[in-house]
Amino acid sequence: MATKKIVLLHNAMIVTVDQDKRVFRNGAIVVEGDKIAAVGQSREILHDFSASADEILDLQARVLLPGFINTHVHTSQQLGRGIADDVDLMTWLHERIWPYEANMTEEDSFISTLLCGIELIHSGVTCFAEAGGQHVSGMARAVKLLGIRACLTQSTMDSGEGLPEKWGIHSTDYCIQSQKELYKKHHDTAEGRIRVWLGLRQIMNATDRLLLETRDLANELKTGIHMHVAEIPYENQLVVNTREVDHGTVTYLEKIGLLQNNLLAAHSVWVNDSEIGFLSKAGVKVSHCPAAAMRMLGFAPIKEMLDSGICVSLGTDGAPSNNRMSIVDEMYLASLINKGREAFMKGVTDPTALPAEVIFNMVTVNGAKSVLWDNEIGSLEVGKKADMIIVNPFSWSMVPVHDHISSLVYCMRTENIDSVMCNGQWIMKDRKILTINEEEVISLAKRASSELLKRAGITIPSRMNFL
Amino acid sequence: MATKKIVLLHNAMIVTVDQDKRVFRNGAIVVEGDKIAAVGQSREILHDFSASADEILDLQARVLLPGFINTHVHTSQQLGRGIADDVDLMTWLHERIWPYEANMTEEDSFISTLLCGIELIHSGVTCFAEAGGQHVSGMARAVKLLGIRACLTQSTMDSGEGLPEKWGIHSTDYCIQSQKELYKKHHDTAEGRIRVWLGLRQIMNATDRLLLETRDLANELKTGIHMHVAEIPYENQLVVNTREVDHGTVTYLEKIGLLQNNLLAAHSVWVNDSEIGFLSKAGVKVSHCPAAAMRMLGFAPIKEMLDSGICVSLGTDGAPSNNRMSIVDEMYLASLINKGREAFMKGVTDPTALPAEVIFNMVTVNGAKSVLWDNEIGSLEVGKKADMIIVNPFSWSMVPVHDHISSLVYCMRTENIDSVMCNGQWIMKDRKILTINEEEVISLAKRASSELLKRAGITIPSRMNFL
Repeated sequence: MATKKIVLLHNAMIVTVDQDKRVFRNGAIVVEGDKIAAVGQSREILHDFSASADEILDLQARVLLPGFINTHVHTSQQLGRGIADDVDLMTWLHERIWPYEANMTEEDSFISTLLCGIELIHSGVTCFAEAGGQHVSGMARAVKLLGIRACLTQSTMDSGEGLPEKWGIHSTDYCIQSQKELYKKHHDTAEGRIRVWLGLRQIMNATDRLLLETRDLANELKTGIHMHVAEIPYENQLVVNTREVDHGTVTYLEKIGLLQNNLLAAHSVWVNDSEIGFLSKAGVKVSHCPAAAMRMLGFAPIKEMLDSGICVSLGTDGAPSNNRMSIVDEMYLASLINKGREAFMKGVTDPTALPAEVIFNMVTVNGAKSVLWDNEIGSLEVGKKADMIIVNPFSWSMVPVHDHISSLVYCMRTENIDSVMCNGQWIMKDRKILTINEEEVISLAKRASSELLKRAGITIPSRMNFL
Repeated sequence: MATKKIVLLHNAMIVTVDQDKRVFRNGAIVVEGDKIAAVGQSREILHDFSASADEILDLQARVLLPGFINTHVHTSQQLGRGIADDVDLMTWLHERIWPYEANMTEEDSFISTLLCGIELIHSGVTCFAEAGGQHVSGMARAVKLLGIRACLTQSTMDSGEGLPEKWGIHSTDYCIQSQKELYKKHHDTAEGRIRVWLGLRQIMNATDRLLLETRDLANELKTGIHMHVAEIPYENQLVVNTREVDHGTVTYLEKIGLLQNNLLAAHSVWVNDSEIGFLSKAGVKVSHCPAAAMRMLGFAPIKEMLDSGICVSLGTDGAPSNNRMSIVDEMYLASLINKGREAFMKGVTDPTALPAEVIFNMVTVNGAKSVLWDNEIGSLEVGKKADMIIVNPFSWSMVPVHDHISSLVYCMRTENIDSVMCNGQWIMKDRKILTINEEEVISLAKRASSELLKRAGITIPSRMNFL
């Protein structure tokens, strides 16, 4: 076995997010191959490891954090950024997003994931959970190149109305079979960075058979299920009308036994107190997407979910639902939306709701639990994978720092993120992505996206008086 | 008279925000001294002005916009960023903000304004309205150096309870007299970039005499009044209890004749339909601060205000209320908060509420009207001051561009703003501020802010387990 490279980073404020939430003011970390071999005070680590290190890097008092985890992102939708802004939900779905996704090729998905990956890496993300797209093989190719970590998911539907003819609904058998094949082909590839999950687009596009077979297959494969849950009141109403329960999607999923601790429920905006109880009891994880919630869905009862012990993480959703695929901005938004939401519950906002330390957990340890990967990622601890980011806290956007955690959660912007390591490899250094050529991807993306729109017959009305 | 320098910028997408909202796909602009001498198609402008231009700059298809206007910012609070995050309103005010402001020196205010100015310039702001601080002379020194444009305002109070002893309440005569002197000393200085406005901190700190004399003095000096209005339900309740009206601050200000078109009302969250009518009829301008609203105050009826014809602009508020002093992020938030707010009014969000073009007007033409300066700024038109910014739309954060206006309003980040010109002078080029030394200001700010906190006896509990 070849000797693994040993890299020693020292003179950094290290936020470990370990069980004791230790923060080293002047800390050091040792990376051996793809894993963390030591974390501690700079002086001790330098004493113990200087001699054996292949590379020693002085971080000059910058901040070292675990890589962030974005638990709900449609990588395939990156080419569709701006195709459905400021339009109503029906136009969004029927005239823009469905035709867009239905006309996407595997190559489009590859390019879209590359472009999305650039934005994810710049915002400090080392692991994401794909929300479900059409071409998992295209995504996998991109993730392999990008050097990032991902749980990839096929958008899976075996029923529902109004979907484009050439796309969408397949037989239940096909849905299950195709995912089995994707699992076989891509799971645990790219040095273990890629995992394959099962997808359920949403309850309105799933028969009971698909729901239950997905659950059973996930248990058999020991993998997760990613599903949009209780996004809009209409969805709950339809479930009440057609599936004989008294509230909505979560109540129904509880009834048929789909709620399990390997279910990642995205959004979960329209849930009542009993449903929060069901999610909590079953250990279901919730991906909260603040921007998409405010724009499209509504205000999820996140405070109540956290109080009931649900593991809540953060997601950006897709570019046509948000525009900014930045988990850094999403932290800032998570604070604002949840403090603001209290105004409607109590008459005044609650500035103490969702404090910075709670939000920081959402993008680190809770993210790791949500993607069922917390034994290897989410914190900086000996034996875990070396997924981490270097933040420059000395620029105008973050000074003065009177309260470190609020500075990281509320003031930090993507431009403060200098470098990103995933699986022991630098994938961005000094704001330059090392694994792919940004310019080239941007140029590919421009061409692919305009061709895709043409093919799909999508026209975006101009809102500017161009001369 | 010396000949004025002529600068020609061409090959840019120019968003003029003029009356016809013209956008030149390949446009050019001529700056002569501090004013815009021509705007039009690159070909024509190059033909007409190339010979006389002292400098010709090819913008390589980047985007040229009017400088943004931030209509509510506490420059004095920049040193207090992070001193009051995730605490309740009473702690925020009594234990953090009041002691902070009460212990501020003129030099602190100078440094704080410099630091804040750096952030404003990086986010494309060429003009701001100060929300009211203690040391207008300190602010003016900073604004002079920064090269930015500003309406400066003293925080003015002649009554109210609970304020720190050494600070705050002065006699009505002193309040009026000191502002007269500030006006005399600083109004129309710094090549006309500085204007002095009158301040009213809020109704709970103002006697009727102060309110009315402020109105009369503003009319006499032909300047504006900046006041926090209807921020929290408690304020309205106190007005109902003590001032004999049936709703709140706006109703009372209407009753005593303070509502005029030179009043800039900040926040105005808790206003009812009749009060919206009063504001509209009087031509009062409203500064909407989305982040501060969500965090501290509540959701203002912005859609209703716009529908009733009120001129609404955007502000960041101060650093302890927001953390990010970025008008660019505030545009993104303005969309999200106002689309989301509809969920509480109608049961579902309205993704069509406050479309991008409306928000873009808020930071340009509406901003200019709000600061009573629309004859000279807010759009790129011949004869107006040359206040403008250059945006790089080719990076990963903004591509692909399918819908230009949404790309500018929802995708753009501070890092896309390359260069800023104010009053015909470049104050930032290629993301480097030319007028002051950023590093030096940051270093001054760190020292000044920790000394200020010590002096004020403010301690921020640590929220991290430092080793």
